[in-house]
Amino acid sequence: MLQSEAVKIEIINTGTELLLGNTLNTHGAWFGRELFKLGLRIDRQTTVPDGDAIRDSLQEALGRADVVIVTGGLGPTSDDLTREITAEVLGLELITDEAAMRSLEGFFALRDKPMAEANRKQALCPVGADILPNPNGTAPGVYVPPRLNGRSNCAVFLLPGPPRELYPMFHAEITPRLRALAGVELAHDALVLKFTGIGESDFHQGIDAQLAAVAGLEYGYCAHIGELDLRLIGTEAALAAGRKIALDHFEQYLISDDESSLEKTVVRMLAERGMTFSTAESCTGGLIANRITNVPGSSEVFTHGFVTYANEAKSGMLGVPVEDILIHGAVSEVVARAMADGALRVSGASIAVAVTGIAGPGGGSEEKPVGTAWIAVAMQGGLTESFSVYHPRNRKDFKLSVSQGALEAVRRRLKASAR
Amino acid sequence: MLQSEAVKIEIINTGTELLLGNTLNTHGAWFGRELFKLGLRIDRQTTVPDGDAIRDSLQEALGRADVVIVTGGLGPTSDDLTREITAEVLGLELITDEAAMRSLEGFFALRDKPMAEANRKQALCPVGADILPNPNGTAPGVYVPPRLNGRSNCAVFLLPGPPRELYPMFHAEITPRLRALAGVELAHDALVLKFTGIGESDFHQGIDAQLAAVAGLEYGYCAHIGELDLRLIGTEAALAAGRKIALDHFEQYLISDDESSLEKTVVRMLAERGMTFSTAESCTGGLIANRITNVPGSSEVFTHGFVTYANEAKSGMLGVPVEDILIHGAVSEVVARAMADGALRVSGASIAVAVTGIAGPGGGSEEKPVGTAWIAVAMQGGLTESFSVYHPRNRKDFKLSVSQGALEAVRRRLKASAR
Repeated sequence: MLQSEAVKIEIINTGTELLLGNTLNTHGAWFGRELFKLGLRIDRQTTVPDGDAIRDSLQEALGRADVVIVTGGLGPTSDDLTREITAEVLGLELITDEAAMRSLEGFFALRDKPMAEANRKQALCPVGADILPNPNGTAPGVYVPPRLNGRSNCAVFLLPGPPRELYPMFHAEITPRLRALAGVELAHDALVLKFTGIGESDFHQGIDAQLAAVAGLEYGYCAHIGELDLRLIGTEAALAAGRKIALDHFEQYLISDDESSLEKTVVRMLAERGMTFSTAESCTGGLIANRITNVPGSSEVFTHGFVTYANEAKSGMLGVPVEDILIHGAVSEVVARAMADGALRVSGASIAVAVTGIAGPGGGSEEKPVGTAWIAVAMQGGLTESFSVYHPRNRKDFKLSVSQGALEAVRRRLKASAR
Repeated sequence: MLQSEAVKIEIINTGTELLLGNTLNTHGAWFGRELFKLGLRIDRQTTVPDGDAIRDSLQEALGRADVVIVTGGLGPTSDDLTREITAEVLGLELITDEAAMRSLEGFFALRDKPMAEANRKQALCPVGADILPNPNGTAPGVYVPPRLNGRSNCAVFLLPGPPRELYPMFHAEITPRLRALAGVELAHDALVLKFTGIGESDFHQGIDAQLAAVAGLEYGYCAHIGELDLRLIGTEAALAAGRKIALDHFEQYLISDDESSLEKTVVRMLAERGMTFSTAESCTGGLIANRITNVPGSSEVFTHGFVTYANEAKSGMLGVPVEDILIHGAVSEVVARAMADGALRVSGASIAVAVTGIAGPGGGSEEKPVGTAWIAVAMQGGLTESFSVYHPRNRKDFKLSVSQGALEAVRRRLKASAR
């Protein structure tokens, strides 16, 4: 659904650890998202081991692409050859960049450590290329503009591998250069609308044709478990039109329009309303509390989490009547509601959510198969609501799906309550 | 540290969603780990968009590699062209495989759905190639043996993209063929030893030279947060020698020798001892309970989880004296111990762990900076133990580090207790 293919971009990730499975290559997806925001896309991504292997892949990419971004291999060890091989392939001499050398010396002086001889090569730079400062490590980046050499009309960026060094350098140094290379007409704005409780096919059937008709708008979907992101890029007017189409149809399912996660949205809504929150979890086993407490500032609104895995915990911690568990079973509407009511009462929080279900692989029956869960939301001065879901998935995906349903139920309840 | 490069393997992942950043490409790391166990490694991994782009990358890979594994593009839609392009590039005719067609028809009949016309092409197979059954979806895999065609001496596997279809097919169909292709001398055994509480540099300094001296042994390290995997491949004798070297030095840090996670190991040890477990979490916010309940069968040993984020929760749920919190602060050894003791008392579990710390970004002080945490372990009939850790990391990594330290403390306590 993205048509912008004006600028051909290739990513080359170097690192033996990426190919041995020691490290998950998250660079690809990260670059994809960041470039999308600039109205750009990746044409090809290649992973090669440390060392010499980069030569062939770089040479091939230079013949195809307008921009090549290489990550890794800028360190001080003998395996770190990205700088040397790039200069060789482009036919450029490597010289010591004085500013880079001073910056390296400063890095070590600040840490009161002697600089090893091996680090000196990190200040080397192809003649005429730009050194890209790295405030978070010893390896500066390198930018070789197009037409600097006789062998390629391609812009080449060399970036450090570790995300904490790569990400800030990308935003500070790469983004403005890519914007300049791509030309102003590609300097799009971007908007991500996150939805839950609705799937990709609903969007296809509901608004796909309308979005496609908006001039200057590009869009894409990104489906996660229990969540769908609609990504829009284009002019300000196109974004506004695309947003209106999406919200006219699906506003009730909207989590956020600023890339906030569902848990972050819930924490924000609680804080805005001056409300506190409590969780009572059986089958999700603490995942809901864990997600909420991943949000900075959640301690202002989240007070008590009850992980009542055993039946005695449901009775002891939350006061769920033992006979309810005996008669209806631990996975039942009655018990889910009693857990939510109990969490509200014991914690004194403004709102509480409870879940109880069968994660599997064991514990299922014909009547209540693995994947069944009940969710209940209780609120001070309001009625307790409850519903069931069915997610016959593996254990972790089941937990995630149920936690998503529970947090979404809280979001809707908060939305319905006055702000 | 791996020297085996006899068989050159390339992976081509197709999927526009991988390049737009919508989906994290986990295939690369997964293949790396699985191939490592076979004594094999990936020479290059390439990601290309859906559709035509696979043609060039496949052609290039055929010229370099002994084995090419392509994932994705085997579905029924017009974007799914992997089957067609592979046949074209190899100069092989596509014909309908009758067994594959019956299997497809059976898939839909079982689900009481009509088979769409578009699905028929999923039964197409290059002449002479093998169809690889897919019990988990509609897209069968394809294996084109080397020398089947005049254009390449390379074995080509076409596999479905979704992990739940890909992983079982790899184990059932690809592993035996790769072993046969690589020859018996490469049919290594593999062993993964997981350690915690010790870093990669300890291994480098401690046993690297000794491991390198073992004939027929290849080894590699894989560092995660709070965990280090030592991977060994080789003959039975070499594995035994490597294992002995590692355990002679670091047995006390060993989590498992069967790839079990720390939480799985803890659940197993609890079950073996007939013990039950409870958690009291402040700064980890439910992460420890979540990790434990990710383990199938954890409901046999895990009973109560207390997420006491607010001070009132620490007092109310666990009976931590209010004056202890006032005098020592919520993040203190006294409070951590009172939380563990309270969890043990309230739950009646055999053993309990408690954590309290400062996840940040706010809440730090000069005396107790962000990243500080106290961990305590209480056990029925035993003394309560406590210690502090310091992990000045981002919020999620801090939580993970602290949860790792807490679970490791439980593991050690269980190890010290009679089985």
